[in-house]
Amino acid sequence: MIAGILGATGYAGVELTRILVSHPAVERIFLSSTSREGDQIEAAYPHLRGVFVSGKVSSTLLSPDEVAGRTDVVFSALPAGTVEPFAALCIEKKVPFIDFSADFRFDDEEVYRAWYGRGWDHPELHEFALYGLPELNRAAIKKRVGNGRGHGYGQEPGRGHCPVIIGNPGCYPTASTLGLLPALREGLAGKGTIIADCASGLTGAGRELKRETHYSESADSMAAYGVGGHRHTPEIIRNVRQIEGGNRTVIFTPHLTPMNRGILATLYIPLPQAGKPAPKRQGLLKTASVPPPLPASPETAERAAAIRETYTLFYRDEPFVRVLPAGLTASTARVRGSNFCDISIHLDHTGTTLIVCAAIDNMVKGAAGQAVQNMNIILGQPETAGLELTPLVF
Amino acid sequence: MIAGILGATGYAGVELTRILVSHPAVERIFLSSTSREGDQIEAAYPHLRGVFVSGKVSSTLLSPDEVAGRTDVVFSALPAGTVEPFAALCIEKKVPFIDFSADFRFDDEEVYRAWYGRGWDHPELHEFALYGLPELNRAAIKKRVGNGRGHGYGQEPGRGHCPVIIGNPGCYPTASTLGLLPALREGLAGKGTIIADCASGLTGAGRELKRETHYSESADSMAAYGVGGHRHTPEIIRNVRQIEGGNRTVIFTPHLTPMNRGILATLYIPLPQAGKPAPKRQGLLKTASVPPPLPASPETAERAAAIRETYTLFYRDEPFVRVLPAGLTASTARVRGSNFCDISIHLDHTGTTLIVCAAIDNMVKGAAGQAVQNMNIILGQPETAGLELTPLVF
Amino acid sequence: MIAGILGATGYAGVELTRILVSHPAVERIFLSSTSREGDQIEAAYPHLRGVFVSGKVSSTLLSPDEVAGRTDVVFSALPAGTVEPFAALCIEKKVPFIDFSADFRFDDEEVYRAWYGRGWDHPELHEFALYGLPELNRAAIKKRVGNGRGHGYGQEPGRGHCPVIIGNPGCYPTASTLGLLPALREGLAGKGTIIADCASGLTGAGRELKRETHYSESADSMAAYGVGGHRHTPEIIRNVRQIEGGNRTVIFTPHLTPMNRGILATLYIPLPQAGKPAPKRQGLLKTASVPPPLPASPETAERAAAIRETYTLFYRDEPFVRVLPAGLTASTARVRGSNFCDISIHLDHTGTTLIVCAAIDNMVKGAAGQAVQNMNIILGQPETAGLELTPLVF
Amino acid sequence: MIAGILGATGYAGVELTRILVSHPAVERIFLSSTSREGDQIEAAYPHLRGVFVSGKVSSTLLSPDEVAGRTDVVFSALPAGTVEPFAALCIEKKVPFIDFSADFRFDDEEVYRAWYGRGWDHPELHEFALYGLPELNRAAIKKRVGNGRGHGYGQEPGRGHCPVIIGNPGCYPTASTLGLLPALREGLAGKGTIIADCASGLTGAGRELKRETHYSESADSMAAYGVGGHRHTPEIIRNVRQIEGGNRTVIFTPHLTPMNRGILATLYIPLPQAGKPAPKRQGLLKTASVPPPLPASPETAERAAAIRETYTLFYRDEPFVRVLPAGLTASTARVRGSNFCDISIHLDHTGTTLIVCAAIDNMVKGAAGQAVQNMNIILGQPETAGLELTPLVF
Repeated sequence: MIAGILGATGYAGVELTRILVSHPAVERIFLSSTSREGDQIEAAYPHLRGVFVSGKVSSTLLSPDEVAGRTDVVFSALPAGTVEPFAALCIEKKVPFIDFSADFRFDDEEVYRAWYGRGWDHPELHEFALYGLPELNRAAIKKRVGNGRGHGYGQEPGRGHCPVIIGNPGCYPTASTLGLLPALREGLAGKGTIIADCASGLTGAGRELKRETHYSESADSMAAYGVGGHRHTPEIIRNVRQIEGGNRTVIFTPHLTPMNRGILATLYIPLPQAGKPAPKRQGLLKTASVPPPLPASPETAERAAAIRETYTLFYRDEPFVRVLPAGLTASTARVRGSNFCDISIHLDHTGTTLIVCAAIDNMVKGAAGQAVQNMNIILGQPETAGLELTPLVF
Repeated sequence: MIAGILGATGYAGVELTRILVSHPAVERIFLSSTSREGDQIEAAYPHLRGVFVSGKVSSTLLSPDEVAGRTDVVFSALPAGTVEPFAALCIEKKVPFIDFSADFRFDDEEVYRAWYGRGWDHPELHEFALYGLPELNRAAIKKRVGNGRGHGYGQEPGRGHCPVIIGNPGCYPTASTLGLLPALREGLAGKGTIIADCASGLTGAGRELKRETHYSESADSMAAYGVGGHRHTPEIIRNVRQIEGGNRTVIFTPHLTPMNRGILATLYIPLPQAGKPAPKRQGLLKTASVPPPLPASPETAERAAAIRETYTLFYRDEPFVRVLPAGLTASTARVRGSNFCDISIHLDHTGTTLIVCAAIDNMVKGAAGQAVQNMNIILGQPETAGLELTPLVF
Repeated sequence: MIAGILGATGYAGVELTRILVSHPAVERIFLSSTSREGDQIEAAYPHLRGVFVSGKVSSTLLSPDEVAGRTDVVFSALPAGTVEPFAALCIEKKVPFIDFSADFRFDDEEVYRAWYGRGWDHPELHEFALYGLPELNRAAIKKRVGNGRGHGYGQEPGRGHCPVIIGNPGCYPTASTLGLLPALREGLAGKGTIIADCASGLTGAGRELKRETHYSESADSMAAYGVGGHRHTPEIIRNVRQIEGGNRTVIFTPHLTPMNRGILATLYIPLPQAGKPAPKRQGLLKTASVPPPLPASPETAERAAAIRETYTLFYRDEPFVRVLPAGLTASTARVRGSNFCDISIHLDHTGTTLIVCAAIDNMVKGAAGQAVQNMNIILGQPETAGLELTPLVF
Repeated sequence: MIAGILGATGYAGVELTRILVSHPAVERIFLSSTSREGDQIEAAYPHLRGVFVSGKVSSTLLSPDEVAGRTDVVFSALPAGTVEPFAALCIEKKVPFIDFSADFRFDDEEVYRAWYGRGWDHPELHEFALYGLPELNRAAIKKRVGNGRGHGYGQEPGRGHCPVIIGNPGCYPTASTLGLLPALREGLAGKGTIIADCASGLTGAGRELKRETHYSESADSMAAYGVGGHRHTPEIIRNVRQIEGGNRTVIFTPHLTPMNRGILATLYIPLPQAGKPAPKRQGLLKTASVPPPLPASPETAERAAAIRETYTLFYRDEPFVRVLPAGLTASTARVRGSNFCDISIHLDHTGTTLIVCAAIDNMVKGAAGQAVQNMNIILGQPETAGLELTPLVF
């Protein structure tokens, strides 16, 4: 199998190369960079020098055309708003196209236009596009590419695959959606707005030099950014509405956190009985009207355990989602470098709000790893191929 | 003025020493440590060696008795549950006692017992106690100590002050309460639960060696802790209920963040019109029933500006609270080492929830600096004396 | 192939597990922990939960006896001074024993006693011991275990291998020796003391909770430790003397650096012409007697290039050593998570001292990765098996 | 006293503002920025908002002319190679000029030209220049400005001071020179090259956005830079030669270290008996010719103690230099935010090389604090005025 990467010198492209180099079914990787076309790979990637990769990775950075013409799958880590022409090229050549930008995540051009400031030049291309969060819509992806049953992938000899474009999910939407999915699907959530308060390491801000990602201005400090306006907001809301129907709103706040990798989503989901007063425990109340704030009752712990069990069952066949037992909270360190999403289940002290923590490595499950997971599905590989990455816990 | 510090070798004690050493009205500082009594200060605090401090700080670590007997004010940075005897000693000697633990933050023993697992041994002591968040209850503190008008402080010659115990607020409650106060006082908040999603640097976890604060297990990683059960929860709720009456609940989630200092509170406050649909903008709707998620409307920005103005006016005379202009978000770097609380005002994209970010240095406004602010009020000093600390922004 | 790990819950043991889990020839891994015997693996290693490892790693922590009795190779990450009994057990059972401590790194008991404060209880065991730095003494290791030619490994059916103990090198000695080896072997170095000024990330200080590895005391700070007395000193000097003969001294200073992984050794090696004055360039001298300090001359750059070429040739067949081209300096980020040692070659501005920077991941090439490299050699595997780890450059 | 800062928006300018704001003798501070002239201070420095500074710091960024015309002292944090015209302006106006760049650190234009690539446009200006490391040449500075005895400073009424330019030392040269000074002055050092192996936090690399100071590329990693060619090399060597005469060479290697502030210099100084074999201890030698590497002997510890005593005496009257007792090593945390230089004294295990660790905050003693120290000397203030800054040890 031969893979191509457009925009290979950005952080997601570098991480994708790391993963594909040890993918058992990938024989060759062609890299492309519009800004460094013709350069030696090792000049752009000094850390890739060495015997393992030299045989597998092309030695120079190619043009997108060269990449699309000789590969079984093309990944694009190019910026949002620039991707359509490359997708069109791949559709024409019947090469599956997996896009890291937001350009193919939405089926509603109006939403894309409203948040990204531009529409689609080639609306017809978007007919080929599918959102690529396997835990959410694996069946749809498989159905499109033939489900391994003879049509679609492998149907035509040689290079010809089912023409498909995957809109690889954003990092925050991945963590948030995986944290919300069982609650929404299994009807655990009550009505009302969900809050997704999220923290990201600085690789999430990309390779471009910016004041706020200069070491001296970001180290040892924390701040929110894009409050009320981050572009991952409509992607999260769209996922929620697709899961449960209805028009629930999600408020999403991202924070820049002084670490390299990792996203932690702390999700606040109202439970059905929200509004009902917590059970009164006699002897502790000072006045009849205003109960004092009390710690969680034993019933709350039981209820949390039941929800944790629901989550565990829901994800029991998912290779990359780990629902943690009671007593553990999801931490970004425990998923670092891996494709895992760790989820921990908690209730607030009043027992009325479900608090879910979901941790991923933003570079892996939040970008390159998930893209490889999509590639595996499309090309009929075992879904975990190349993704059996043990976390570097420190 | 002579100050004493009990529990001086913990982080809050060390920071308090740093601040008091350059306080213009403090002539002498006596330090006490139950674990290191008799040691030379410089052995416990090698960074304090040097000419500036040698004349001002006692050269050995004393016993609590020695400290209480010769000072105008005593600060205690001893652990919760151990403080009452020392407070009693100071009340007896009419020395104001400023306590960093939770032991004197509550006037309701039941709440304290429910969250801290023990009651009060000396309920009568708590009659002398006041919660010490000046921006919330400066007037009450001044009234108790005589407001500089002849009774209370200064009433008796020599060492005799008005007997008072200050329950110095917790770090999370300080940031959260200051972020919520104007919204609650000015009636901006609608009904419903408030969420306080907070991040803290690791000095907040104290000096005790623990697995989760070992460098290799906390660096470059983020995780929540104490979800649904952190002891600062009732303190935040108590403050909210005291401000606005009623029995509103606050859900509080702390996170351990890989930085040394700083607390960032991201506060979600429902606005009165919550539930009302966002104004429809024609031409963007796909179906009548489910509007697509759209970015904030111009009206939302206007509304945020109005709330920001309210906050700015509310805090216009507070020397330590800075409401940031539009375009800035509160960051812990900008308050590092100072007694400032920076507050930024935002609305979510639907305009139905007020999002307030409040940043403090957990060691200063969240502990030692606030204690000095309380001392200044009690002892009739200018409130900013010794606290004109410019942030070390990097 | 079945591997066992004694002391599996320390950092080196955890990293070794990460590597062995994806080693193509390792079918089973038995873990042992004296402190947590009987516990479930997942309780001790929450980050190891998940489908990939569950089939390969034993589900509970075993006793050392259980491990030694059913494995093809035993790794010990137990503390120095406790290892001999376990080595004896493995020698008896003819299971190769790879030890991470210093106990089997020295063939001179006096040196061990002088630096580690205790002698050997079983001197006869040390006859089986070999120092395991493959780039230095691969031939000796291969010869001992039969070089794959019929005697030694594989000679006896079943579990019986050539009895051998590998003293896996220390992290600082690995980086320092690899940085010095070509200069010493190829006669580039002049006389005189070599200085090895080294920095290590905090995983190098291990899992034990200590004041100096508490996050708040180590983050954002740097300091030397063990100056003039660190136990890796004799190991580095022994290696140097073994390489070139003679009795050269190396001065070694380690520093604790606020990062998780990585060792950077900056090595100062006198060149033969040391002492000869640098070529005078006319027109720049102010006085005849004291030349001003001038930047490096073009001849110096040429000389550096020649030395770099020698290093490159020397290591051309080594899969894990990368000599960087001019213009790059070795950085710990570029080897993070991999078994690489990156080496950059520089001259000081006078052209009289060779400065070599050598970077490794202390957990991989400095511990677990090198141990697997030794295992591969001993058990006749390709030396890079399981070690084709691409660096996580960020 | 009125102070002006040119280039106020760089890191050194920001730190200088922090220090001057609380300087007891500084009434007003005028800030200038060529890039942001006319901007409000608070827009450039959001962390400076607030009551303390508003009265003292000018509210807009001025032009250099405006600053020079109304101040008692001008600090320049402008880049090297751009400073002469501003110095000329101040000399003309008889305003002392303290320059943070290298432009006035050298009295030998050839050395400056050789390392900085350009000569002086106004050689006559350099007659007014003095190197400003008070611990090295306080007497010369005082003599030039009249030593407070009637000529020079204060001679002329109003704004007229002795025309003087201070070349404020580089950060690495400050730490290195202070670490070497007693050894060189007191004749402790033997012949031979000195090695200065140094680490710096990232504020030392300045505010300009660069690939290597982007958070994701510098966090959690360490690397040397400018090996054999850093511009601070000639400054260190010049200081050494000025102290002891002769033409000794110093090899200087800087490293970028993942922390915000701090420089640690580890200095290797040959002792006179270098070359003499270490005293043999009977019973430990294996062969007559090659002694095994042994730990330091008791005599070595005694010798280190004697050298430590010499250092302690040498610096006993210096308010900012702290020689640490045995058992402590200099750490950047213990000087963070302060003007201290901490020095620890060690010997290598053979007792032939003196190892000195010197730690400063690169922004304070390595830049802004030292500049204020120079200002205090020039303008007749107590040398510690405004510099009684207690370290933020965490």
